Amino acid sequence: MTTKQLLEQIQLKKSFLCIGLDVDLNKIPKHLLELEDPIFEFNKNIIDATHDLCVSYKPNTAFYEAYGIKGWQSLQKTIEYINKNYPEIFTIADAKRGDIGNTSSMYAKAFFEDLNFDSVTVAPYMGKDSVEPFLAFENKHTIMLALTSNEGAFDFQTKNVEGKELYKTVLETSKGWKNSENLMYVVGATKAEYFTEIRKIVPKSFLLVPGVGAQGGSLSEVCKYGMNDEVGLLINSSRGIIYASSQEDFAQKAREEALKLQQEMESILNNR
Amino acid sequence: MTTKQLLEQIQLKKSFLCIGLDVDLNKIPKHLLELEDPIFEFNKNIIDATHDLCVSYKPNTAFYEAYGIKGWQSLQKTIEYINKNYPEIFTIADAKRGDIGNTSSMYAKAFFEDLNFDSVTVAPYMGKDSVEPFLAFENKHTIMLALTSNEGAFDFQTKNVEGKELYKTVLETSKGWKNSENLMYVVGATKAEYFTEIRKIVPKSFLLVPGVGAQGGSLSEVCKYGMNDEVGLLINSSRGIIYASSQEDFAQKAREEALKLQQEMESILNNR
Repeated sequence: MTTKQLLEQIQLKKSFLCIGLDVDLNKIPKHLLELEDPIFEFNKNIIDATHDLCVSYKPNTAFYEAYGIKGWQSLQKTIEYINKNYPEIFTIADAKRGDIGNTSSMYAKAFFEDLNFDSVTVAPYMGKDSVEPFLAFENKHTIMLALTSNEGAFDFQTKNVEGKELYKTVLETSKGWKNSENLMYVVGATKAEYFTEIRKIVPKSFLLVPGVGAQGGSLSEVCKYGMNDEVGLLINSSRGIIYASSQEDFAQKAREEALKLQQEMESILNNR
Repeated sequence: MTTKQLLEQIQLKKSFLCIGLDVDLNKIPKHLLELEDPIFEFNKNIIDATHDLCVSYKPNTAFYEAYGIKGWQSLQKTIEYINKNYPEIFTIADAKRGDIGNTSSMYAKAFFEDLNFDSVTVAPYMGKDSVEPFLAFENKHTIMLALTSNEGAFDFQTKNVEGKELYKTVLETSKGWKNSENLMYVVGATKAEYFTEIRKIVPKSFLLVPGVGAQGGSLSEVCKYGMNDEVGLLINSSRGIIYASSQEDFAQKAREEALKLQQEMESILNNR
């Protein structure tokens, strides 16, 4: 999917919502556990109930790998289901990968070719040659960690590196990498005041923003400081939507939570 | 496996060699491609031919994920084969994972419980709460990236953070994390002169050292500056061993390459 197509979907749906499919068997409705593939069934129901309210789904690979081969099968069935039934959706493999060049190429192959995701999240610590193999794929997007939403973000990301915070160095340095037009960045919503500075460095880039909802970030604050002329934001909510109910009405309740966020987004888009 | 048991194996085998099982279907002998699981067959032959010369095997997960579910099955069969037949081997899942706390817990479950590896590599960028869930496992080891062997290491890892290089900040900060006695570190062999400084910060920790062989690092230089009283080094070689031959004699040739490194290590251990 191209960035232009993503923007068209945002305008059409009046939504820049991404729903995180972080499926924990301990948290899903009990009646699903009797089925052959509870994780996929859960995702299928959530997706069918919310696809018109969001522009993106983001399974976090950890939740699938934790269940071994069965989990990887659930992930594959989930991405195939989205690509077949809702090809307009921008899919994100939240995998936070990164390795030396030839190894990163294998990860890129895994997520862009084998699973056919539109994008994958990567970690910046190993530098340019660990990220460029992902950037080499046409019409695929690489979403690099910049400033994350967790407490540990303050351990290294905000440390002063030769006059500015490390996450700013990461943003600036990556702009010089080959095919950097395929880069997006992860910026946590729990730190809304940082968006002003970030937009000075990457005015045009899409930012994937976790931390709204369960982690305490404010949607309006993020939009105030982070939105650009072409929206430039994908706001992720995971637990707040998918675990809105642990009963048989889980998909309907998920839709209600997604609708609240979509309506808030529509209002923001109409009033800017 | 405990660190003490690992050290006993090193003393018994006169080897601190780790063999990287980074299996690329384009590089393995053609006759294996006719078998049902070429990746596992390749690994099984390499392992049977080298297990007495090394103390550790390190499959890099990228090479398995690139082949989807079949690849994940090959990884599972490989770790099960090692654990069943050579339980004295220290196994490393080279996965370079890391995410917010509850998500890192799922990765830890994947590698320590579902697959039953002794250790897993992690990335430091997201800080303390992204690594502590791995450290919480008893008799399991978390190997954190400090200074990697690739060119991109100079993009961020060696940048000056409040008076010292980022990788030194990573080493020092992580020493204060809960259960940090379960931490080892990745330090690339291509930068042997850095080991003196690193040993001042983490004198006792085991260091996993990639970059000997194909990437150009020198074993004797690394040992000169990086070895401690309890050896404290695991030297990895991947391509130089497993792709020593692309013919039917691949396992025998791999043994010959592993033997050269083991003999060099035995000499170093005897002369220190």
